[in-house]
Amino acid sequence: MFVKPRILAFDTFGTVVDWHGSIVKEVGEMFPTLDADAFAKAWRSQYHPMMQKVMRQELPWTKIDDLHRTILNQILDDFGVSHLNEPERHHLNLVWHRLKPWPDSVAGLKKLKSHFVIAPLSNGNFSLLTNMSKRANLPWDCILSAELFKAYKPDPKTYLGVVELFEVKPIEVMMVAAHASDLHAAKSCGLQTAFVHRPLEWGLNPAEPVLMHDEFDLACSSIEDLAIKLGC
Amino acid sequence: MFVKPRILAFDTFGTVVDWHGSIVKEVGEMFPTLDADAFAKAWRSQYHPMMQKVMRQELPWTKIDDLHRTILNQILDDFGVSHLNEPERHHLNLVWHRLKPWPDSVAGLKKLKSHFVIAPLSNGNFSLLTNMSKRANLPWDCILSAELFKAYKPDPKTYLGVVELFEVKPIEVMMVAAHASDLHAAKSCGLQTAFVHRPLEWGLNPAEPVLMHDEFDLACSSIEDLAIKLGC
Repeated sequence: MFVKPRILAFDTFGTVVDWHGSIVKEVGEMFPTLDADAFAKAWRSQYHPMMQKVMRQELPWTKIDDLHRTILNQILDDFGVSHLNEPERHHLNLVWHRLKPWPDSVAGLKKLKSHFVIAPLSNGNFSLLTNMSKRANLPWDCILSAELFKAYKPDPKTYLGVVELFEVKPIEVMMVAAHASDLHAAKSCGLQTAFVHRPLEWGLNPAEPVLMHDEFDLACSSIEDLAIKLGC
Repeated sequence: MFVKPRILAFDTFGTVVDWHGSIVKEVGEMFPTLDADAFAKAWRSQYHPMMQKVMRQELPWTKIDDLHRTILNQILDDFGVSHLNEPERHHLNLVWHRLKPWPDSVAGLKKLKSHFVIAPLSNGNFSLLTNMSKRANLPWDCILSAELFKAYKPDPKTYLGVVELFEVKPIEVMMVAAHASDLHAAKSCGLQTAFVHRPLEWGLNPAEPVLMHDEFDLACSSIEDLAIKLGC
């Protein structure tokens, strides 16, 4: 039996915003001769290992901004552009606050907002998500960040933290993401789940094909498609 | 020297929304023969003593929704309307999620939003503020609640919690409130402060006159006036 969710919680990097395209564009403008596609992928690839270090308590609680900065310092060396000074590094690191939405995101979210409470539920820190959403006109009802729960997805504390904040049943929250691992973890906590297929998340030449998943409550081609499937 | 703030944090009950008028209207419609003005005042008057019990650790951490409910159970008896059943009590308690903004609030906030990050910083719980803001079309960039810091204003943890979340200097945050006590506490933490005069906060017959305060960085007659004074 379909239970109408009250809250839609969205993964953001890759699901709502195009991190790869946004970073390739800025980095390409900054360093015209550099392989911006490889740079963006290298930066993103260290994101999960760094969060895992935090979750294994090899690092104290660390915001994504600071994890991104640690990775950036390393890849600037790797790509031979280590001449960047401190203000330039700081500015480049904040490219994650300037990510652009996929073309369907704002329109889809506006439709969903009339029927549901909509919020990001991202590992991005609270200020990153707030700044990014303001800039991109993402019409969230509130910002939810893993930072509020001092745990990174897929830790159950994040999904159940939303359930507790809103005093709802897990099934009244639907997690929306382009990543099956996120949705499997949300499903284990009793949340509903919607997969959004983002074949271009890693650009035109992903290391592995980005497949559609149909093992969740909904399988969607975009956020506008999610709005249609939820009857908006 | 005037430092332009980056974040405006708003007290909400009384400052952005008219709790007295909203409660008088709903309670008056529910119980036409009851003194709704006295009922609203009785409900609100127990709010600070209840939060103080939490802050003195006489009670464990308790959301405002639950504090409101404890007070409501008592005043329903006091006003002779204790026949309300559980669903009716629950619905009435959520009147705090349905508070209406002052006439200048939405227009003023929209202007401020183009220049600053705007957020509530209220003792109201996160879901209360999210639901209320959605219903009232308050165009916040994010929701900040004392609940996120597990401390009630005027505890410094609340004001400094905002500073830490956004990694800014205290002077880059401006607290906006209709209550001098809130602003004095924010000022002690190094925040900028703007007073908004809300002479009708306690209705037409307040127990004490609601005075303008001019000891803060700004003294405003409304949120639209704040927008003008901040150059929007």
